[in-house]
Amino acid sequence: MKREAVLRELREVFGPRGVLWEAHHLLLYEYDASIDKGRPDFVVFPTSTEQVVAAVRIANRYGLPIVVRGAGTGLSGGAVADQGGLMIVTTRMRRILEIDPVNLRAVVQPGVVNLAVSQAAAAYGLYYAPDPSSQKACTIGGNIAENSGGPHCLAYGVTTHHVLGLEVVLPDGEVIEVGGAALDWPGYDLIGLIVGSEGTLGIVTKAILRLLPQPEAVVTLLAVFDTVDQASEAVSAIIADGTIPGAIEMMDRTAIQAVESAKRCGYPTDAGAVLLIDVEGLTEGLEDLAHHIARICEHYDAREVRVATDPVERERLWSGRKGAFGAMGRLAPSYYVQDGVVPRDQLPRVLRRIQEIGQRYGLVIANVFHAGDGNLHPLILFDERDPEQTRRVLEAGAEILRACVEAGGSLTGEHGIGLEKRDLMPLLFSPADLEAMARIKAAFNPDNRLNPCKMFPSTKMCLETWSRRRARMAEPIRYRAGPPEMPPEEELWI
Amino acid sequence: MKREAVLRELREVFGPRGVLWEAHHLLLYEYDASIDKGRPDFVVFPTSTEQVVAAVRIANRYGLPIVVRGAGTGLSGGAVADQGGLMIVTTRMRRILEIDPVNLRAVVQPGVVNLAVSQAAAAYGLYYAPDPSSQKACTIGGNIAENSGGPHCLAYGVTTHHVLGLEVVLPDGEVIEVGGAALDWPGYDLIGLIVGSEGTLGIVTKAILRLLPQPEAVVTLLAVFDTVDQASEAVSAIIADGTIPGAIEMMDRTAIQAVESAKRCGYPTDAGAVLLIDVEGLTEGLEDLAHHIARICEHYDAREVRVATDPVERERLWSGRKGAFGAMGRLAPSYYVQDGVVPRDQLPRVLRRIQEIGQRYGLVIANVFHAGDGNLHPLILFDERDPEQTRRVLEAGAEILRACVEAGGSLTGEHGIGLEKRDLMPLLFSPADLEAMARIKAAFNPDNRLNPCKMFPSTKMCLETWSRRRARMAEPIRYRAGPPEMPPEEELWI
Repeated sequence: MKREAVLRELREVFGPRGVLWEAHHLLLYEYDASIDKGRPDFVVFPTSTEQVVAAVRIANRYGLPIVVRGAGTGLSGGAVADQGGLMIVTTRMRRILEIDPVNLRAVVQPGVVNLAVSQAAAAYGLYYAPDPSSQKACTIGGNIAENSGGPHCLAYGVTTHHVLGLEVVLPDGEVIEVGGAALDWPGYDLIGLIVGSEGTLGIVTKAILRLLPQPEAVVTLLAVFDTVDQASEAVSAIIADGTIPGAIEMMDRTAIQAVESAKRCGYPTDAGAVLLIDVEGLTEGLEDLAHHIARICEHYDAREVRVATDPVERERLWSGRKGAFGAMGRLAPSYYVQDGVVPRDQLPRVLRRIQEIGQRYGLVIANVFHAGDGNLHPLILFDERDPEQTRRVLEAGAEILRACVEAGGSLTGEHGIGLEKRDLMPLLFSPADLEAMARIKAAFNPDNRLNPCKMFPSTKMCLETWSRRRARMAEPIRYRAGPPEMPPEEELWI
Repeated sequence: MKREAVLRELREVFGPRGVLWEAHHLLLYEYDASIDKGRPDFVVFPTSTEQVVAAVRIANRYGLPIVVRGAGTGLSGGAVADQGGLMIVTTRMRRILEIDPVNLRAVVQPGVVNLAVSQAAAAYGLYYAPDPSSQKACTIGGNIAENSGGPHCLAYGVTTHHVLGLEVVLPDGEVIEVGGAALDWPGYDLIGLIVGSEGTLGIVTKAILRLLPQPEAVVTLLAVFDTVDQASEAVSAIIADGTIPGAIEMMDRTAIQAVESAKRCGYPTDAGAVLLIDVEGLTEGLEDLAHHIARICEHYDAREVRVATDPVERERLWSGRKGAFGAMGRLAPSYYVQDGVVPRDQLPRVLRRIQEIGQRYGLVIANVFHAGDGNLHPLILFDERDPEQTRRVLEAGAEILRACVEAGGSLTGEHGIGLEKRDLMPLLFSPADLEAMARIKAAFNPDNRLNPCKMFPSTKMCLETWSRRRARMAEPIRYRAGPPEMPPEEELWI
């Protein structure tokens, strides 16, 4: 009656509204935004660090794996409970504890939604810079786990550059505090280590974030090109010219056509590529800079460059980019988004290679990506209900990532490794490199209980160990003291 | 004849000009810029990663501790061989391997001097942002070990924000590569972990650094105040106003007087404090912004604000700040510099506390520091030849750091923990926090051979283990095949 014992203990801590365990409830927590699935045995919704510690201790007593989940917007399966176990959902830990405008920092719980930080800071003319496309839904805890990026990370860096301190529950239930309000902090940089560790080293229960002053003004440019090559060369030329714009995003023809058929944002549908460029800073001189960048684009044969200073017009230009992933639904029932990174000067070559891979596998690939960073997002369009096509999509995806690594790049820019790319890690890391990481994992997470078998090449041993443990946990629960109440819907679907 | 055996092996790898072992040569390597001392048993000067690996393997075979040293400008004893052993000096690994203007990166060996990177990048309109005051002498390897800052880290962040990739020799002689050209990289952030690990986890043999475009224009302001309080309030107001200048440095009256007696830079000697502010960006609008900041200073009772756009006048204003530490020699034979950090809004309170501590111990304390960051550098003036005074200085220094921590700050902003502050770490970290770091250290450096007994509270066991080993190594060397040649002087004194 182990499952019943676990449930009893969890309900003691979380109350009837804080634990899910019935199949039809668990169903809602078996996926994130990737294509992997896996059902947890229990889901709990802590509201405090103490409840997280209690959940970890219970999982340890019963030998359950632990998976932490924020809003479930992750794209690499990092929050999928593929080995079952206890899922800790942070969405009820959503308090902004402090906005400190003098020291430019915010203190938040991990379930706070990314955009909510900037909204709260706006009263002081401040904002939180990392802006993943899912920023209206994704949580700070998830951003920290995946070291999330976003369009404006070109100028401002990714999540790790904006986290000053963390409170972390370790896999043994110990609570540590790392970092603090200052930019530098002595001792080993555990913040840097935990940011991007995809939930394998500890559970973040509080974060001190760096806030930045909002730019005084922003000008948005839309530059229209006949070919992706011309647009790529313009990107390199803009950066080499000595300016780092706030963002440089590229969309290719397939993406443009999808977007324009979904909502009219005024992108010319016969263009080969568009660049969307934000130039930020002091009002004075900014338009001149924008026109200077426009001239660089024209030098690389942009057939048209629009310059928008008005917020409404800027918003319209950006709305296409922001809605691009959603608009893919016009073209196919499913898409599989990759997240390779290449050195900026390799963009034209790798983009040609991606098109060639698409043709070889008979797949349509749209590109919407952070061109300034060299962070590609090829969207492979397909129908998930067709298993043969799905197999081709996965193969093509892996081949694209191999092409990125061969060009001196990386497997992921901001979506993480998770389940999806764990077996590709040896493309990027030598056995000695992976061994160094394994030592760290073992130092923190010796029983491999926290997000097991994620992020590193899956070993038979890891998978078998957990599937044996899982079998032992599979007994039906007979304990029923009336049906458990569901958490209110908005808490499930933040 | 263990010492002789070590020497023979080292000379086989490094040749007669690559090993020092005689007392009068070792003397030159027994200190850095801190007040701690300790003589190594051998000093080697590798020129390649392979030679570093060979040195590590020899040290391992003979059970020698390893200490890595760059230019010896460190301020916390991190490069002092207080347990003897093998010192690896990186100053012959000083090649800039690549400047890549398109991807904004430089690839360098660890012995490259900080300023040399910016000098090499200047041809492309780029520079390397972290600018420690010792940037004409200190090496990139040392900057990485200590996660160095500098005046302009206010706007641009510290070393860890500018390192994209590293090649590292681990304590077992294994070579790993971490990170790469992209801003984000999958796997655990070993770069973040190694940057600031003070030579306790691995030896950096190559670094990929991020380069930034040089700002189009810089305006420097000198704001003169009657009191430190007024100047501190102006700093908070400037930041809260929504601008982050490139740098905001403060000097108090004692510092101003020392500087002006050493070289005339035009600071008024009756002022209570001066702020030196760099505003950087596009030419257009920049003077307006500078005047806006000047008005904020005036609002906080600045009695004079000078605005310099001319490079010669700017340089003159900065020369006082850059020569401030050196100028202290006018006031006393020695100074002991602290490196506390406090939240910006605590500056006035903590600065008053520092003056009160100085008075209580009968010591003169000058303050020259990164005000925008809240990173204090109280310089306690004294005479090292007076042991009683030296004791008071150390006590006052520890009390200042305690005051910083009590105000919500940290023990060090950019100088590191090293030997100097290792026993103060429990002020900042709980036993669980320190245990988490100890686990990482054990994972990489299980024999504690790399920079032993540094950075963490010194345990009797650590010190005794190494002093026993050291006694075994103390036999005189009788092996003499002619006197070893000295390396040319400039290689010793980079």
